[in-house]
Amino acid sequence: MHKSQLAGFIIDCETDDLEAAALFWSSALGIKARGPDGPAYVALDTRPEDYHLEVQKVSHPSRVHLDIEADDIEAEAKRLEALGARRIGAVGSRVVMEAPTGQRFCVVRPQRANFENTANTRD
Amino acid sequence: MHKSQLAGFIIDCETDDLEAAALFWSSALGIKARGPDGPAYVALDTRPEDYHLEVQKVSHPSRVHLDIEADDIEAEAKRLEALGARRIGAVGSRVVMEAPTGQRFCVVRPQRANFENTANTRD
Repeated sequence: MHKSQLAGFIIDCETDDLEAAALFWSSALGIKARGPDGPAYVALDTRPEDYHLEVQKVSHPSRVHLDIEADDIEAEAKRLEALGARRIGAVGSRVVMEAPTGQRFCVVRPQRANFENTANTRD
Repeated sequence: MHKSQLAGFIIDCETDDLEAAALFWSSALGIKARGPDGPAYVALDTRPEDYHLEVQKVSHPSRVHLDIEADDIEAEAKRLEALGARRIGAVGSRVVMEAPTGQRFCVVRPQRANFENTANTRD
């Protein structure tokens, strides 16, 4: 038995200028940007229990993707495969998957502060 | 002066089977699907003050896009153009725009129950 829930949304930007991308999205959405989180990420300043929002510098075409957080990434990936998703690969601890409808998304470690209380229990 | 904020996320699915797409995303994210909202939308059952999440049947390639809600759509579109976004077109009352980083998004009428209290005031 494990737990999972929607963790948040990542705004993937094909750009060399992460700072400018983060400035646009922060201004557009009206959510303050935090400082850079490593060379590829700027987190927007949402509350710890809310969906996290991040601007990411990527080398593939720009898009928006969502993350699902789980206390057992492998069990969650298997659950999602059983629902029809396809496993694409892994980046560090995260598993990259593709929905039957074609969108890429990631399974990641728990990130929201309310994970223990609000995540869904999965068999 | 007008107000705007991030309204939510739309999971655009290039499919003929909206029901199957909504079932996948509802199961994957652990959020109940509401009944169909017209022929092209199924809303997921988030709280009225939270970001809305919807599964949409589309004819373009699948993606995830975000909506910005505003009490003056034209003023908000102009604000976003000044930040570097490009206006693509209109679908009913909504304006479709493209970020400088390439993602499409929409400016829509207020949808979240907390709009009056939490939206950002724009000059």
